[in-house]
Amino acid sequence: MTSDLAPFFSPTGVAIIGASTNPRKLSYGILKNMTKYGFEGGIYPVNPKAEEVLGLKVYADVAEVPDPVDLAVVVLPAPMTPDALRACGERGIKAVVIISGGFREVGSQGNALEEECGEIAESYGMRLIGPNCVGTLDLTTGLNSTFIQGVPALGSIGFVSQSGAVCGGVVDYIADKSIGLSHFASLGNELDVDEADMIAFFGDHPRVKVIAAYVEAIQNGEKFLRVANEVSRMKPIVLLKAGRTGAGAKAVSSHTGSLAGSYSAYQAAFEQAGVIEVPDLSTLFDVAWALSCQPLPKGERVAFFTNAGGPAALAADSLAANGFRLAEISVERQKKLAEKLHPSAQVANPVDMLGGAEPAEFAHCLETLDGDPEVDVLLPMLVPQSLVNPGDVARAIVAATKHTGQTVLVCMVGERSLAEARKVLHENQVPMSIFPEVSGQVLGAMRTYRDWLAKGESAPFAFENLNQAEGERLLSIATPGQALGEAETRPILAAYGLDLIPGKWARDAADAAEIAEALGFPVVVKVVSPQVLHKSDLGGIALNLKSTEDVKIAALKMEAGILENLPDAKIAGFLVEKMAPKGLEVIVGMRRDPTFGPLMMFGLGGIYVELFKDVGFGVAPLTPQRAREMIAATKAGRLLQGFRGSPVYDLDGVVDAIGRVSQLAVDFPLISEVEINPLLVLPEGQGAKVLDARLILA
Amino acid sequence: MTSDLAPFFSPTGVAIIGASTNPRKLSYGILKNMTKYGFEGGIYPVNPKAEEVLGLKVYADVAEVPDPVDLAVVVLPAPMTPDALRACGERGIKAVVIISGGFREVGSQGNALEEECGEIAESYGMRLIGPNCVGTLDLTTGLNSTFIQGVPALGSIGFVSQSGAVCGGVVDYIADKSIGLSHFASLGNELDVDEADMIAFFGDHPRVKVIAAYVEAIQNGEKFLRVANEVSRMKPIVLLKAGRTGAGAKAVSSHTGSLAGSYSAYQAAFEQAGVIEVPDLSTLFDVAWALSCQPLPKGERVAFFTNAGGPAALAADSLAANGFRLAEISVERQKKLAEKLHPSAQVANPVDMLGGAEPAEFAHCLETLDGDPEVDVLLPMLVPQSLVNPGDVARAIVAATKHTGQTVLVCMVGERSLAEARKVLHENQVPMSIFPEVSGQVLGAMRTYRDWLAKGESAPFAFENLNQAEGERLLSIATPGQALGEAETRPILAAYGLDLIPGKWARDAADAAEIAEALGFPVVVKVVSPQVLHKSDLGGIALNLKSTEDVKIAALKMEAGILENLPDAKIAGFLVEKMAPKGLEVIVGMRRDPTFGPLMMFGLGGIYVELFKDVGFGVAPLTPQRAREMIAATKAGRLLQGFRGSPVYDLDGVVDAIGRVSQLAVDFPLISEVEINPLLVLPEGQGAKVLDARLILA
Repeated sequence: MTSDLAPFFSPTGVAIIGASTNPRKLSYGILKNMTKYGFEGGIYPVNPKAEEVLGLKVYADVAEVPDPVDLAVVVLPAPMTPDALRACGERGIKAVVIISGGFREVGSQGNALEEECGEIAESYGMRLIGPNCVGTLDLTTGLNSTFIQGVPALGSIGFVSQSGAVCGGVVDYIADKSIGLSHFASLGNELDVDEADMIAFFGDHPRVKVIAAYVEAIQNGEKFLRVANEVSRMKPIVLLKAGRTGAGAKAVSSHTGSLAGSYSAYQAAFEQAGVIEVPDLSTLFDVAWALSCQPLPKGERVAFFTNAGGPAALAADSLAANGFRLAEISVERQKKLAEKLHPSAQVANPVDMLGGAEPAEFAHCLETLDGDPEVDVLLPMLVPQSLVNPGDVARAIVAATKHTGQTVLVCMVGERSLAEARKVLHENQVPMSIFPEVSGQVLGAMRTYRDWLAKGESAPFAFENLNQAEGERLLSIATPGQALGEAETRPILAAYGLDLIPGKWARDAADAAEIAEALGFPVVVKVVSPQVLHKSDLGGIALNLKSTEDVKIAALKMEAGILENLPDAKIAGFLVEKMAPKGLEVIVGMRRDPTFGPLMMFGLGGIYVELFKDVGFGVAPLTPQRAREMIAATKAGRLLQGFRGSPVYDLDGVVDAIGRVSQLAVDFPLISEVEINPLLVLPEGQGAKVLDARLILA
Repeated sequence: MTSDLAPFFSPTGVAIIGASTNPRKLSYGILKNMTKYGFEGGIYPVNPKAEEVLGLKVYADVAEVPDPVDLAVVVLPAPMTPDALRACGERGIKAVVIISGGFREVGSQGNALEEECGEIAESYGMRLIGPNCVGTLDLTTGLNSTFIQGVPALGSIGFVSQSGAVCGGVVDYIADKSIGLSHFASLGNELDVDEADMIAFFGDHPRVKVIAAYVEAIQNGEKFLRVANEVSRMKPIVLLKAGRTGAGAKAVSSHTGSLAGSYSAYQAAFEQAGVIEVPDLSTLFDVAWALSCQPLPKGERVAFFTNAGGPAALAADSLAANGFRLAEISVERQKKLAEKLHPSAQVANPVDMLGGAEPAEFAHCLETLDGDPEVDVLLPMLVPQSLVNPGDVARAIVAATKHTGQTVLVCMVGERSLAEARKVLHENQVPMSIFPEVSGQVLGAMRTYRDWLAKGESAPFAFENLNQAEGERLLSIATPGQALGEAETRPILAAYGLDLIPGKWARDAADAAEIAEALGFPVVVKVVSPQVLHKSDLGGIALNLKSTEDVKIAALKMEAGILENLPDAKIAGFLVEKMAPKGLEVIVGMRRDPTFGPLMMFGLGGIYVELFKDVGFGVAPLTPQRAREMIAATKAGRLLQGFRGSPVYDLDGVVDAIGRVSQLAVDFPLISEVEINPLLVLPEGQGAKVLDARLILA
């Protein structure tokens, strides 16, 4: 552990700057928490107006605090914070938590104060958590710099939350459930330490087995992607994103002053970095807890043992919705099951032991299927009955599954009579839910993570025919802020090796006819005019022209028609292109996301992309594998594979085109949008051709 | 209350047949529950081997039980049950709960016993609940015929559940949450009383304000639809369906022996009957409880008052996903809010009172927005803080919202420190959730119900040009089990007034040419052959023929080609039809669902219906309003309205076509499938024409 974040969790000594002697103050609460959970380092309250608090000597100034001290917790009004930070810097403290609010989240004055704090920290080489946060907790060292009441059990989930309130709510929620955390950190305004830093820290920490994160807005998308991608290969990252909808984003921005990118970009980034996204707070901890306790399921086959059919049906629905299925229990094992169950019990899966099932019957079922190569997940279920003690059932389950390599999840439906059972199960690393529907969600997330690990790191694109220098030359002559039409975009795409439908610029109608002759008929003629970006809306495209005469007439008519509609349009000639063969039209695009940068898009052409919102996203740079995933996420991807009698199309050509646009976006940050629409995908082996395209420059 | 189900809940006297003196037996548990909750009627244990149990005289035979007695609860082994039923019949008891299992759910022997019970009950005019159930509970009379431990608070939710275990789990879950029920009934195998009966009973019962239902398989779809449709106009029905997926349905059928229809049919039926479907058990009670406590939201504008930003962001996401939005708080009211809040508090919505918000601040916010015509829902949120007592916040919320007409929902994130707050809120009819995401789901369901009430009952179709007698004549000459091709289906659809593309059957190529001449060119020629149902796959269609010569050649070639491929095909002539104009191709279909009967389908034509599963369903007979809803549920419906430059199509024509097929399906149960594919929808005012169709007969 050599991270410069270590002092936030395992400091040798802590100065509490602004520690009050008034039990109604938050700083008093912090001091109390600091002394309450076994922290063995020095605790030094700093307050010029006090002598002693909670039996601790109070120091008038941080300069007077004795060695060793490597963490400061600042709980002063915002305007006093910069001076306190300087004092910490002079004292040689390199890690500071600023609990206080009153910074960026309250407007411009606070923002200036926050910036000042950032500069001071930088000048002293200090790391900051906060401001506007509730601090950090380490259950392994007993460090608790928060004012939250109570702590959860010691476990192996490292939790990072932008919101301090979410930390508080979560602790209150899990405290009596024996769900164990190792650490948490609340990051507040994230002036310095952000989610990526915490994920990296938890990634390295041997006590953390699973990272859980509550995220509002990520500041540095590129850093997050890099760190999360690396850490998720070692341990799971489970994440809840707030501000997914417009209303949610508004609520986020009004309370932290953060501006988030689009949720599509977040989703793509999470997928790409192996981050397991969950839809809500309860699922965040259901999933993180299961991942911290249980091995990943090796397959999708689940065996139920239940004392009641209804909840099993609900659980089965939830499993099916998450890609799991009922295991087949062999006839031999069914016979073995029947030996010790009620004669009317059902021994096929779901095994229904009937209402009165005793602990021994649960144990018998679990032992009978332990190690069954046809069963990946064991799922005992209980609805409390007056004659059976759920705690005893829990003990039987724990004993019977102690050495199994299968994934074990328990569902007990209810609440009042289940407290002991939950305690027994959770203290023995067997996750229990009180609703049957949770099992499927948890297993689905475990499976997502298993598949991510299995996938491994994928090779990057290796492009031939990619001339970056030529791209640079072409872009250097374009005007910033400009929208480039097809004629200007084509050479740039050609420099990046994209396959264009053959075509050439013609200065006038006669020239167009000559070029058409050289290309071979039939051809398409399109107007070239900076005033006409949406050519088809203005009659700027003529299709399927079969002779030089037709081409000449079409070009002249087109020019006349456009000038009639847009008298000020400048006609800069025509594009003459070969008429395209039959194929599937798709869209490949890129727009720059404020958080994650170049966001690649793939979707079906025509009106269907809008009608069905059938789009796959990825953050550039992409690997070929990631481009394939983007395609596979869409129904257009199914059409490419050949659907209901249509041919199999050239998937590799689409992957290549997506990859080249991704590279272009990475190489030239001044490109703010690319749209190839349509990219014509030909049958397998024949590639994919750009039929129309445009660029927008920043 | 004159229902024959009344004795199941408010009997004058109850005989417990098979009451044991052994406290380890379920029947003893039932007797204990019968005596424990204030039931004032007679309680008569029946058991030939005992004298007294729990201080009650035991009767050797039900014949000896004194008057009045109008309910029997049978807890005997299955084989003894028929005799017990007969004895009840002789004693004049008209309502019997059979708790015992060992009937249909265990196979053919049990099934025979169950049928015998049914016959006995019928012969005595008895109503039966069960077998294989946990009985009934009425918190208003204290009647408790179950062996479940504990009872929930008295409230106004009537709960019906096919699964007894779900009743037990639910009671255990809500017992300490002050969520109130008025009754529940567990129906088990539903030999007699089913969900529809219970819904009707709860519908009439003045103490029931909301009906909650857990359903596995509905036995009689038509009855359910009729009853639910009527009751849902008086009080909300909230329903959870198990067995939605294949795995869930398998789990259902293996534990009750029920066979369910397709989930699409269930969903359509629920929508059509105003039943509010929920996705899981926790939501079932979140929604039912809120509906039983609070007025329906008048609009979609929500004002948040929170002491923490993060949970508000999560709640805002969940609201947006359910069609709600942040209310605009006027500048005047913002000023008023600021008067008593922390100077750094945010007074725009979401109002963030900051971490230390006191009960008085919650009260101030609620009072300030009470009656605001711009706010439909008040949503106070709290994350527990060490210095504020959540119970006090709850009391402040209750006092401040006592007389408001707005919908009030509370979210307090946590668990350990919230028990008192929840008790205070729930005892005062203010629903509280511990997760921010729940608010959106609850409001979404409330809105669904509000919109259902607003919609009212809609007029049925009134068809002109519908000749049922002609339909009957045509169908009477068709062979059962037969698939009717286009040529045979056309006259049937024509009899029902569907608009067919003009066309006529031709006996041979020469005849086809003559007919084409009469119709006017261009035409389409299709082969007529019972062996060729999928015409286009076998070259059985020729499009856009422009002369008599072309028609003759096409017909001859077609006949030759088909005979080459299918030497045994019988060519019964040709259909000659006018070539169709441009329009939008859609599919209208019907298949008979085992539970709900004629299930109507509408979707986009071509491959997109399969690719995007873009289908709307409805159960016939439909009203025009319901047909419109089926269309509106699809993306095809958006295309019909004119999308991205395409024309507005004739929606009325599609509605009419769906209505006529619906009527056909209702009139002729022997039709098991109808498919009009495509129905060509022309621009507005020009109707919709059948281009191809087939029928399958049962």
